[in-house]
Amino acid sequence: MATDMDKYYKAVDDLSSSSKERLGKAIEIQSVSADNVQAEMKKMADFLVTELKAVGADAETKELNDKKLPHVVVARYPANPDSSKRTILIYGHYDVQPKGEGWKHEPFKMKEEDGKLFGRGSTDDKGPVIAWINVIEAYKKSGVQFPVNVRFCFEGMEESGSTGLPEFLDSAEGKQLFDKVDAGCISDNYWLGTKKPCLTYGLRGINYFSITVSGPPKQLHSGIFGGSVYEPLTDLIILLSKLVDSQGKILVPGIEKIIEPLTDEEKKLYDGIDYSLKDFNDSIGPKSDCGIYNDPKQILMARWRYPSLSIHGISGAYSGDQTVTSIPPNVTGKFSIRTVPNMTNDRVTELVKNYLNVEFEKLNSKNHLTVKLNDKGEWWRTDPQAQNFKAAVSATRDIWEQVIPDLTREGGSIPVTMDIQKGLGDKSLMLLPIGTTNDGAHGPDENIPTKNYINGIKVLGAYLHHFATQI
Amino acid sequence: MATDMDKYYKAVDDLSSSSKERLGKAIEIQSVSADNVQAEMKKMADFLVTELKAVGADAETKELNDKKLPHVVVARYPANPDSSKRTILIYGHYDVQPKGEGWKHEPFKMKEEDGKLFGRGSTDDKGPVIAWINVIEAYKKSGVQFPVNVRFCFEGMEESGSTGLPEFLDSAEGKQLFDKVDAGCISDNYWLGTKKPCLTYGLRGINYFSITVSGPPKQLHSGIFGGSVYEPLTDLIILLSKLVDSQGKILVPGIEKIIEPLTDEEKKLYDGIDYSLKDFNDSIGPKSDCGIYNDPKQILMARWRYPSLSIHGISGAYSGDQTVTSIPPNVTGKFSIRTVPNMTNDRVTELVKNYLNVEFEKLNSKNHLTVKLNDKGEWWRTDPQAQNFKAAVSATRDIWEQVIPDLTREGGSIPVTMDIQKGLGDKSLMLLPIGTTNDGAHGPDENIPTKNYINGIKVLGAYLHHFATQI
Repeated sequence: MATDMDKYYKAVDDLSSSSKERLGKAIEIQSVSADNVQAEMKKMADFLVTELKAVGADAETKELNDKKLPHVVVARYPANPDSSKRTILIYGHYDVQPKGEGWKHEPFKMKEEDGKLFGRGSTDDKGPVIAWINVIEAYKKSGVQFPVNVRFCFEGMEESGSTGLPEFLDSAEGKQLFDKVDAGCISDNYWLGTKKPCLTYGLRGINYFSITVSGPPKQLHSGIFGGSVYEPLTDLIILLSKLVDSQGKILVPGIEKIIEPLTDEEKKLYDGIDYSLKDFNDSIGPKSDCGIYNDPKQILMARWRYPSLSIHGISGAYSGDQTVTSIPPNVTGKFSIRTVPNMTNDRVTELVKNYLNVEFEKLNSKNHLTVKLNDKGEWWRTDPQAQNFKAAVSATRDIWEQVIPDLTREGGSIPVTMDIQKGLGDKSLMLLPIGTTNDGAHGPDENIPTKNYINGIKVLGAYLHHFATQI
Repeated sequence: MATDMDKYYKAVDDLSSSSKERLGKAIEIQSVSADNVQAEMKKMADFLVTELKAVGADAETKELNDKKLPHVVVARYPANPDSSKRTILIYGHYDVQPKGEGWKHEPFKMKEEDGKLFGRGSTDDKGPVIAWINVIEAYKKSGVQFPVNVRFCFEGMEESGSTGLPEFLDSAEGKQLFDKVDAGCISDNYWLGTKKPCLTYGLRGINYFSITVSGPPKQLHSGIFGGSVYEPLTDLIILLSKLVDSQGKILVPGIEKIIEPLTDEEKKLYDGIDYSLKDFNDSIGPKSDCGIYNDPKQILMARWRYPSLSIHGISGAYSGDQTVTSIPPNVTGKFSIRTVPNMTNDRVTELVKNYLNVEFEKLNSKNHLTVKLNDKGEWWRTDPQAQNFKAAVSATRDIWEQVIPDLTREGGSIPVTMDIQKGLGDKSLMLLPIGTTNDGAHGPDENIPTKNYINGIKVLGAYLHHFATQI
């Protein structure tokens, strides 16, 4: 006899055309937050409200403090929550990246080809957002009782820094979203590769610095003044050279001490991960060989659980192709540190500033140094053994032929994750990706494999089921 | 009784209106070599030929190999040289810098105001070029016999790198210019300050390098790849930091050994030079204080007789104001070394390349390094005690109230000087400036003080006289 979940999966399959159609409609709306064409952003938010209401959710749009910003779509399902059931908060975003260059397909017209659904937003993040709506629809069609209460928060500014969302989440209205919530789930990242599902439990944070060295009041001729003045670019280069060595080792004293030590338990998390040196090299480019490590585990640890420091560039000095010979009077170097537990933004900033000031003192230069923190984002790392994750592991195994998903982290930041975690407090938050690393998010010909989209609907539905039925 | 030279000086004074008018006509022709409007360049060359012929010289224009380049004006005076007299080669240039921004005056319409003659080219180098023609006119008017044979070489590409001139000077036609010449004189630089004349006996050379470090085949995201790849910009910054210290000391091993030691005799040349720390600071800007040395002699030596190394910029990395977080795949740093006796271009290049390759090896990086010499120019240094200089010292004393001109060098390069010196072989070449450091050559409101222009004509004429009559 078919189980409830079998009925649900069958409903997902039966509805697959309708699910693709729904995604197609979403892709046609050009909700590019960087452009912020208000009519398109509103159209997209209204579309979501309509679709959510159609499946029986209670849905509405909420203004942000800055009323010109795209509204947040807030919804709950069932419309009348069942207080005997667990409650899950689900975040997604309905805005997309600008079209950009290089498309072979139409960016804003979904097309299925070679088993993939092409279109801007197909994987980032309209695919997952629409998938959640499809989950409700499939549960209804299957006749199986919806296992949990869900709250939806779909924002329209994620690709533009989630402006306004933290304030909204912190408002009385926003806090209602988190009231009596048992866990959170975000489907807005990707599998590590293309074949094996994963669940993500950590992201690195970032401290972005600029250091400015200034001296002469104007640009000087190096023939006339070279050798007789303190050159700001010389000092800047010396300071930048003291930040990190060629092997990627951060040279700022004190950083090492605030990195959480690697435990045997954590080390084990890397054991089964489906990742090879070839995967790493392939992700950089054909025949590339620029990696520091050969061991895939070391590569992943360097990316996920250790900090890194990258120098990004220098402004104020000549950056063209000519043989310009001037001495620039005022130059700024930029670098960022990707942070991990237990590095706090403040402590990292303090260590960097102190170190650079001490090193600059040693130069005995008449130039002036300013060290500035330009931007910051905290790391996020949660317990991958939480019930929330266990439910997703079971769901993944159910759908993807008993494959146990890799437990992964990411090297970059998804700032909104921290904001959602803040709202959740000590409740578990999980990133549950349904697309793959090759989907071309942000690039041309963005797509999601049809199988990932449809199985994604199944996994998300099964996750809710397992979360509800866990002891 | 008035001496011959008194008669000459009186003639210069009598002709001062006509001399200024001639300069005014020259300034009106927009012979900007960077624009190379052929009609204007031809007009200017033809104007010089006409003026030279009008005072009795044998003058013509000569095509360069590239016939589109402005022609060189070649002339001799007297038209029938007197083989019993000494012969002097005189170089100047009739092209000017582009107008640029910020003029209060009309750039191509000479105006006399506050004792200065304003207009593009007034001091660089139409003023001195026309002054030489005025010298001939004044000698004729005074009835005094012209003391020497002169050969003129006035080019039209100096502000654009003297393209084509070296080949011309090296051709059979060009070599005739130097045939039986006893000395050379170039009036195309400036006094060290505004009050005291100088004669210039040296220029620094330049080796301009670019070092490129490349690695990954494309730009990488520092969140995803930071810590797991060799970053080209990290390596480049480390290499650049090993070139020079904050105090201006060049760190390339071996350079120190090829710098000519300072002798007591050379040291004495700096004794009377009219230059103060205030002059130095003022030349940089109001209230500026970015100098390494307080002793004016040390400042001048650092500028003139010691090499310097300046880093000019980096291309290939982000140079804007945003908080961009990418890892650039291919970056190029640019720096130049100002060279002095006895550093040869080849030896400096060899030392730099070897050093950087060794330092790069030490990094143990998978990135790739290329060190390239982009441009070079040799230093020039001649004997300031030569008869050529002694004649100019006497001339300067005659005109400028017995002031003994400072013997100076310059920190920058004037590449054509080397080309002229090459043609002269072991004959003395001298730079005899008539304008001042504040004339604004290359900038807006370029000018030459009227007194410098008129006294310049006197000094140049007296120099020919003294050179002719020296024992």
